[in-house]
Amino acid sequence: MPAKGESVDADAVIVGGGVIGTAIAWQAASAGLAVTLIDPDSDAGKASLVAAGMLGPVSESVFGERDLLNLNLLAVGRFPGFNQELEEATGLVTGLRTEGTLAVAYDSGDLAALRRLTEFRHSIGLKAETLDAKQCRALEPFLAPGTRGGVLATGDLSVDNRRYLAALKAAAVKAGVTHLTGTVTAVTAEPAGASVRARLGDAPGTTELTARDVVVAAGFATSRLDGVPDKIRQAVRPVKGQLLRLRHPEHMPPIATRTIRATVQGRDIYIVPRADGEVVVGATQEERDDRDVTVGAVHDLLRDAVTALPAISELILAEASAGLRPGSNDNGPIVGRVHEGLVMATGHFRNGILLSAATADAVAAILAGRDPDAAWAPFHPGRLG
Amino acid sequence: MPAKGESVDADAVIVGGGVIGTAIAWQAASAGLAVTLIDPDSDAGKASLVAAGMLGPVSESVFGERDLLNLNLLAVGRFPGFNQELEEATGLVTGLRTEGTLAVAYDSGDLAALRRLTEFRHSIGLKAETLDAKQCRALEPFLAPGTRGGVLATGDLSVDNRRYLAALKAAAVKAGVTHLTGTVTAVTAEPAGASVRARLGDAPGTTELTARDVVVAAGFATSRLDGVPDKIRQAVRPVKGQLLRLRHPEHMPPIATRTIRATVQGRDIYIVPRADGEVVVGATQEERDDRDVTVGAVHDLLRDAVTALPAISELILAEASAGLRPGSNDNGPIVGRVHEGLVMATGHFRNGILLSAATADAVAAILAGRDPDAAWAPFHPGRLG
Repeated sequence: MPAKGESVDADAVIVGGGVIGTAIAWQAASAGLAVTLIDPDSDAGKASLVAAGMLGPVSESVFGERDLLNLNLLAVGRFPGFNQELEEATGLVTGLRTEGTLAVAYDSGDLAALRRLTEFRHSIGLKAETLDAKQCRALEPFLAPGTRGGVLATGDLSVDNRRYLAALKAAAVKAGVTHLTGTVTAVTAEPAGASVRARLGDAPGTTELTARDVVVAAGFATSRLDGVPDKIRQAVRPVKGQLLRLRHPEHMPPIATRTIRATVQGRDIYIVPRADGEVVVGATQEERDDRDVTVGAVHDLLRDAVTALPAISELILAEASAGLRPGSNDNGPIVGRVHEGLVMATGHFRNGILLSAATADAVAAILAGRDPDAAWAPFHPGRLG
Repeated sequence: MPAKGESVDADAVIVGGGVIGTAIAWQAASAGLAVTLIDPDSDAGKASLVAAGMLGPVSESVFGERDLLNLNLLAVGRFPGFNQELEEATGLVTGLRTEGTLAVAYDSGDLAALRRLTEFRHSIGLKAETLDAKQCRALEPFLAPGTRGGVLATGDLSVDNRRYLAALKAAAVKAGVTHLTGTVTAVTAEPAGASVRARLGDAPGTTELTARDVVVAAGFATSRLDGVPDKIRQAVRPVKGQLLRLRHPEHMPPIATRTIRATVQGRDIYIVPRADGEVVVGATQEERDDRDVTVGAVHDLLRDAVTALPAISELILAEASAGLRPGSNDNGPIVGRVHEGLVMATGHFRNGILLSAATADAVAAILAGRDPDAAWAPFHPGRLG
């Protein structure tokens, strides 16, 4: 560990190469910092890759999470500009879609619940348009005949999360980020300086890297990282999500144009179509820490998808996968400086893709000694005690 | 093509390396013939690998296919001895199971149908034991509470079709079979001699191999093979089957001990447990020639499996795959000498694994100039006109 004022290996060492860590690395390096990112580079189960890429602050907003809604609105407002910078920096296309989200209901109970949520959303100034069954099917002709009505959230976006992460990686490399393959085993941040200890590639033993700041963007694995304060470790837990990736057979017209959400027998399902013909169906929320794809979860997802869009039966089941999202004990992300040398960016739960751009802005500001947007104040790690 | 009496490249060239072709190659080589087997070696969609390995002549027997039943009984009688020779020749274990098949019913209509089939089976001398719901659950405790009753076919076996094919390949190699990777584009069998034309490995153009006999064991692709008589080509078609491979999570007790068959809403489903914890759920029968795994098929298989064995929800969905089985226009295999130099062994449809041992015996006899068992007579290619 360097004495204060000594040279360090990097201005910032980022722990974790999902969308959060990689977006931060890109932005920090673009701002002129020397950035090193350490990631196991094992794509298996990486939550950023298992996601659907819904950017749905409006259709995701629920009663009682006003601070999170404010943050999500900040994030979705920032996303298109950030994404455009990303596409311009890399020449890659991320598949951003702007057709909104259509939430549909199949019985009068569902419909009433949807209407109450819409009233709440209107009351806080969100745009959501109530549609009858005919209007729903005019927008999405493959909806089930039993569709009773719905609500269109025009402000919701979606992005191809895999293309998006690939573009972030490419942008980070172009901006000069040093990418190391390895697993960080401990972080240290004391007045004398910050460092991480990691097993790198094929190197024997562990390697220490010093930095002005260590940024922990390790998702649910933050809970297992030595040196992270106990209150934070205890606040983060894995929440398993299983989802399906479907493809259209050749010559089949697109089954949907926009994200479709439905509640089927009390279970929420979403169907996210991509412009390239992929359709993502998700997702379970399970308090488990394995990445097994299970019969029960795939069955439920398929059944609910077929209920919403019967013609989806004709699609190809290309992949079923499971990831572990970083849940937090109040469902909010944990982003901010813990103390000198240590910055947290985890706990993004179901909103990692959505919040990635805004998180990158916030952490880049923090690393530069500035305050992030006020919408982040409720999500400072200090709230955890 | 060699003139009569000239030396040839092999005594027998086998076209196709599924269980039928490979079993024939092993037996023919063991009988002293010089055998060459040509197979694309692309495992994708090979019907032998997508199968479940049920050896169920009793539970598969239906009204009106008496000749096929006789053949299937010959085949299941031969299988254990053949399999033992195979395990002894290779030191490999194929996972043969002898616990039988339990067919179950969920409503009085299903139960009545099952009882009628049992009476028919008894009338032709097959063993099938009628069980009430309690007896069914005593055998298989994880059966759904709604199980009304069932029938136990003790004579049915099952084998791990993938281990079995791997063992056949190893045995063929040990017996001296020459294995070529390639695709046969045409077969020729004239009084002057027999030959195949094939694209082999990375070799440019096509290669001709001469033989005393060409054995076509090309599954559904027989219908596309130049030189096969038109009547046979027209009699063979691909019948798509999709099935699932599940695995038990660690520490979970086996969900079933024997093959379970059920009719759920008119669809037949089978669940085949392996000793190593794998469980195969199958299978669709679709008149299609693609190998796409579809949402609708996987959904139906999962729903029906969960209906029969609710606790199957806890298993891991390890694989969903599709294969193309060689259906024939009378559901019977097509096995026999067409004319000098050309022997057929295809059209095994749903019974390829079951019939493989008996087919190998039959074709080895034919190649040696002997008649196969009389049970094969109805399945000679000559019946196709």
